[in-house]
Amino acid sequence: MGLLDRVHAGLAGVEGIDAAEQAGDHPTKVFRELLSYGIADLMIDKGNGSGGARIFCDAISTIARTWLSLAESVHLQSLVAATVAAGAGPSVGADVLDDLRSGRKIGANCISEPTAGSDMGAIALCAERTEDGYVLNGTKTWVGHAPIADLLVVYARTRGTGLTGITCFLIDADTPGVEVGQVLDKHAAAALPSADIDFRDVAVPTERLLSRPDRGARLAEVMLVQGRLGLAAAAVGLADAAAAHAVRYAKSRVQFGVPVIRHQGVGFQLADMATQIDAARALVRSAADDYAAGAPTAVQSAAKAKLFATDTAAAVTSSAVQVFGAEAYRAGVPAERHMREAKLLQILQGTNHIQRLVIAERL
Amino acid sequence: MGLLDRVHAGLAGVEGIDAAEQAGDHPTKVFRELLSYGIADLMIDKGNGSGGARIFCDAISTIARTWLSLAESVHLQSLVAATVAAGAGPSVGADVLDDLRSGRKIGANCISEPTAGSDMGAIALCAERTEDGYVLNGTKTWVGHAPIADLLVVYARTRGTGLTGITCFLIDADTPGVEVGQVLDKHAAAALPSADIDFRDVAVPTERLLSRPDRGARLAEVMLVQGRLGLAAAAVGLADAAAAHAVRYAKSRVQFGVPVIRHQGVGFQLADMATQIDAARALVRSAADDYAAGAPTAVQSAAKAKLFATDTAAAVTSSAVQVFGAEAYRAGVPAERHMREAKLLQILQGTNHIQRLVIAERL
Amino acid sequence: MGLLDRVHAGLAGVEGIDAAEQAGDHPTKVFRELLSYGIADLMIDKGNGSGGARIFCDAISTIARTWLSLAESVHLQSLVAATVAAGAGPSVGADVLDDLRSGRKIGANCISEPTAGSDMGAIALCAERTEDGYVLNGTKTWVGHAPIADLLVVYARTRGTGLTGITCFLIDADTPGVEVGQVLDKHAAAALPSADIDFRDVAVPTERLLSRPDRGARLAEVMLVQGRLGLAAAAVGLADAAAAHAVRYAKSRVQFGVPVIRHQGVGFQLADMATQIDAARALVRSAADDYAAGAPTAVQSAAKAKLFATDTAAAVTSSAVQVFGAEAYRAGVPAERHMREAKLLQILQGTNHIQRLVIAERL
Amino acid sequence: MGLLDRVHAGLAGVEGIDAAEQAGDHPTKVFRELLSYGIADLMIDKGNGSGGARIFCDAISTIARTWLSLAESVHLQSLVAATVAAGAGPSVGADVLDDLRSGRKIGANCISEPTAGSDMGAIALCAERTEDGYVLNGTKTWVGHAPIADLLVVYARTRGTGLTGITCFLIDADTPGVEVGQVLDKHAAAALPSADIDFRDVAVPTERLLSRPDRGARLAEVMLVQGRLGLAAAAVGLADAAAAHAVRYAKSRVQFGVPVIRHQGVGFQLADMATQIDAARALVRSAADDYAAGAPTAVQSAAKAKLFATDTAAAVTSSAVQVFGAEAYRAGVPAERHMREAKLLQILQGTNHIQRLVIAERL
Repeated sequence: MGLLDRVHAGLAGVEGIDAAEQAGDHPTKVFRELLSYGIADLMIDKGNGSGGARIFCDAISTIARTWLSLAESVHLQSLVAATVAAGAGPSVGADVLDDLRSGRKIGANCISEPTAGSDMGAIALCAERTEDGYVLNGTKTWVGHAPIADLLVVYARTRGTGLTGITCFLIDADTPGVEVGQVLDKHAAAALPSADIDFRDVAVPTERLLSRPDRGARLAEVMLVQGRLGLAAAAVGLADAAAAHAVRYAKSRVQFGVPVIRHQGVGFQLADMATQIDAARALVRSAADDYAAGAPTAVQSAAKAKLFATDTAAAVTSSAVQVFGAEAYRAGVPAERHMREAKLLQILQGTNHIQRLVIAERL
Repeated sequence: MGLLDRVHAGLAGVEGIDAAEQAGDHPTKVFRELLSYGIADLMIDKGNGSGGARIFCDAISTIARTWLSLAESVHLQSLVAATVAAGAGPSVGADVLDDLRSGRKIGANCISEPTAGSDMGAIALCAERTEDGYVLNGTKTWVGHAPIADLLVVYARTRGTGLTGITCFLIDADTPGVEVGQVLDKHAAAALPSADIDFRDVAVPTERLLSRPDRGARLAEVMLVQGRLGLAAAAVGLADAAAAHAVRYAKSRVQFGVPVIRHQGVGFQLADMATQIDAARALVRSAADDYAAGAPTAVQSAAKAKLFATDTAAAVTSSAVQVFGAEAYRAGVPAERHMREAKLLQILQGTNHIQRLVIAERL
Repeated sequence: MGLLDRVHAGLAGVEGIDAAEQAGDHPTKVFRELLSYGIADLMIDKGNGSGGARIFCDAISTIARTWLSLAESVHLQSLVAATVAAGAGPSVGADVLDDLRSGRKIGANCISEPTAGSDMGAIALCAERTEDGYVLNGTKTWVGHAPIADLLVVYARTRGTGLTGITCFLIDADTPGVEVGQVLDKHAAAALPSADIDFRDVAVPTERLLSRPDRGARLAEVMLVQGRLGLAAAAVGLADAAAAHAVRYAKSRVQFGVPVIRHQGVGFQLADMATQIDAARALVRSAADDYAAGAPTAVQSAAKAKLFATDTAAAVTSSAVQVFGAEAYRAGVPAERHMREAKLLQILQGTNHIQRLVIAERL
Repeated sequence: MGLLDRVHAGLAGVEGIDAAEQAGDHPTKVFRELLSYGIADLMIDKGNGSGGARIFCDAISTIARTWLSLAESVHLQSLVAATVAAGAGPSVGADVLDDLRSGRKIGANCISEPTAGSDMGAIALCAERTEDGYVLNGTKTWVGHAPIADLLVVYARTRGTGLTGITCFLIDADTPGVEVGQVLDKHAAAALPSADIDFRDVAVPTERLLSRPDRGARLAEVMLVQGRLGLAAAAVGLADAAAAHAVRYAKSRVQFGVPVIRHQGVGFQLADMATQIDAARALVRSAADDYAAGAPTAVQSAAKAKLFATDTAAAVTSSAVQVFGAEAYRAGVPAERHMREAKLLQILQGTNHIQRLVIAERL
């Protein structure tokens, strides 16, 4: 049974999504189940064959079709695992990586700061050299998994200003001085809880460096590309789900004597949605192939995929609400939630303004 | 002091919006204060001069700039009052109208049914003739003000099928057999609570007819036009608010060394938002003039205004979230709420599909 | 008979548009007829009452509904007349102004240069002070009316760089050294011929100054606002024409058994077109009112009107071609020509990028 | 050297495009050169391996990047060859097919009629059974290649109404009674001349049937799918060309002191163009794969590709004109021509309304 088939099977029993979203409960059990199929490995070892990235994207899309928070959570975990795999020397230990790949330990990525959103060169969280390691002070914001994380990947400033002088650390979440703030109200994807994290005199031994000193920005860049691909894939799945619900409803809802899908006003809108989704899917897969092949265009391809797929998800989910009309607000109808989730995707991992910047600079 | 100035003054002290929206608390006090300036009268007595409808729209826009639920509530109350003013014979009594104009009694409009959304000809709630009046049985859905209403305007079927055979009644909300359902979760405008209402053997005396028997559809049509204008005006105010917040933020937020409004990517987006809003405002005012003048194009003008202004509000509020980026999700930042509210406006009072239908049929 | 009625009457006999566009023949006769109603005066003397600008815009829209080149030509002539009226001292003579108002002499506006398109501060055409006047050297580009003009309004550099140091002159087109280049192929509006003009040692007496020395930029700014209003009004008329043709065709063309306007796919598109046009018209009129009232927002209002109305014309004319399908390319069907004309309007008088810049700077 | 490399090489010497478009001269020499590489075979023999359709699309895109008329001409010829290959029995002879594959004889597809555009069931051109064949009477419209064609594929009615009763014939263009009308003015792609064709008592022997009697609609459907793919591929190439020109210009044109590509207003627009083009390309390739694999979704995939790619081309070429501003109208700058060509592609092979219909029916 291929990985995608296992993912399908693994999702079959998922239920209680609305309740979990309401309560902010992370679906840890099915999260581990999905990771056990080897999803995180697909992005770690590109040597697995060029199809790894494409299958990864398809897997994330598939999960997002059922539950966005779950897809994003698996994606985020894969990202953390890939960062550790790329950056860890022998001192970190293979067991840590195994803990992340399997989901036994939950990982988080600490990049953004209150005054350093998309502008990584503005990172200010300070890591000061001590005799036997570093001491970190500062604040990271919008950290996904923060309230439930065991391991933190943290980008901190060790020198100067700008992109040079940033170093990447792996830190246990229970290290003294790590203080996780209140869960952020994102109005979407609450089952993947996010929060700010304060670091107050947090001591880190040198073995926990994931990059060479001052050279962490490069690692972050690689991970950003992966992050964009995964987010784009999630957006495709979310749009798929919204469109499928809308088509089903439009076939069953009768107005003026016929199912509303037979009114061209609705039918054409659904046709446009289906077309845009297929275009997004094809673009994401093509970007995944670029990434797997190490193509020189991989960075802009991922930015294009993120831009297009999340804009598509925003448009499609908004159209889906329109197809449902007032019914979109009935309990149990996910259309309105899908729209809020899609909006969030346009902003995470670099707003779509930033994607345009990345693309424009490389034209 | 003109009416608009009084509205501005009356809004000055409004606070606690987020809390009220969270709790679903209707701002009855300020609602009555605003009505006391004579807002509802502007749409009742077109003889006040041709400016009535335009000032009404400007007033609703102004309120919506502060709080959409409040604007919609005042608008809905005005609609109910205008229906009663248009339809009530001497038997209903001037005191009832006064109660509505002043907001002492809260009114609700009962039109939609589970299987009769925008297709009024499908209304099925049955009003059977008895010796001294009518008995109503059936269900109305998506009734704004339902949980707090004192008076209900109800469109019911007295004969046949289609648009003929619909009659309009005024019913006290505490009449035996009137059962208000659970508050609907609209994910927006919770301070204007909505619910379904069941009518079980509800007796109504003939004095409470607001239309001639079987001739209620005509009254509904007139009110629909007014309803669209008010909703369009609310959308303009909501878009105004979203844009103003976004401009303020874009002037204060620094990225890459300058306020983000100085990045053309952001500045041009804000310019487009400002342009669309001004176009929407101009269109709404022009439609209000058509309505006040009794122009033969008044129906399609109102439909165009509703379509354009609510689509504009949806686009502008979505762009505003984009300008804020992740900050849109901070507590106290209304950007994300504005977006949800705008989406709701695209659906209420006839989805935008229905508006296109109304326009296309009259080309 | 009001001015607009006279315009309607004056347009009744217009014919041979396609042939004139093909041949690049300016419709001078009807151009003078229309000017004889006093159109140019509406923008000259704002003291005529606040309605002047609005009636001017309505007149230009009305002409554009019949023939864009003609509307643009009348508009351009009005612009030149207004510049002369605003800038000319007694030395220029009332007869010159009369010649322009009546169209007896055709005027042209010389602003753009090969390296100074929308960036007026880059104007390089040099006016050197001599004993009894100035000598001009340089090139102006994209001069409307150039091949048929009698009088030229020319902005030249008399000092320094940037917006200061620009002076405005009135020059007879037959002055030695004025050399009009080849007619530009604009693929649209050929009946309003445009060309580049070279100025080689062109002598101008001081009496022909239209601005104080070095202070011409201010005059240009005022005229730019007027120019944008007129262009926006023309765009509204053009869009009106395209939509009217499309509606007529959609009512007559039968496919799958019914007129295509009855297919919602077409009907809704026509509804959107009608809605956008009405919004554009309302916005243009509102901007005209701002201009007439000398409102502080007049500059951005005109930029918004130009941006929105020409984008609307581009979208509407493109949709109209879509409604016609292959029939849009039949001889005698103006749909495809309308589309080319609309595209040109998005670019003239400052591209829409420039309009966004103007708006964004004033937010 | 692979086929695509040969295509690149074959295009290297192409020149005089503007002159040929002006004069309506078909580039027969390079057309035959390109066909000699085997382009037409790619769509004929799907047994060549699943990559045939994808390489065909890439080849058409590549040609369109240089010259749309040429790409469309090669595509049309391939379509005619594929129709003959699919439909011809032994009586037609392999030499006819060879003549078409090599371009020695130019083929044309006669489908549309004045009252049967996208509604093939309305085909009225009548083929009456005679003793030794058929006699055709009627008119076909919008026939590409008509003025230069040697061989005509003609769909005619042999019975009844609707899709049943249509038969497909192969007819020599010099058969008595075949009368080619005036070249149509498409305002684009004039080097691929189109015209109407009248058929007056045109006798066709039974050997020239390309379908079984009354069963020609099925053949047309297959060819429609191929036709949409090729047109979509051409649209991608056209958009590529427009974007590449715009990027080049935006890098060289300086305004306000920097190349305009550095203004985000322009840079972001170019980023959006690049993103949409990549999405269109990925979608077209994915649809080609569906076609090659005989996937059940092949019909809607081709419709989606046609819809999306031609809408993208229309948007991108319009944006490109905007980037050029007034320079778009300079002789030698192809931006404005590209826009006219893109508009034509939205209409040919079924307007985009029709594509939406095809997609909506299969949701």
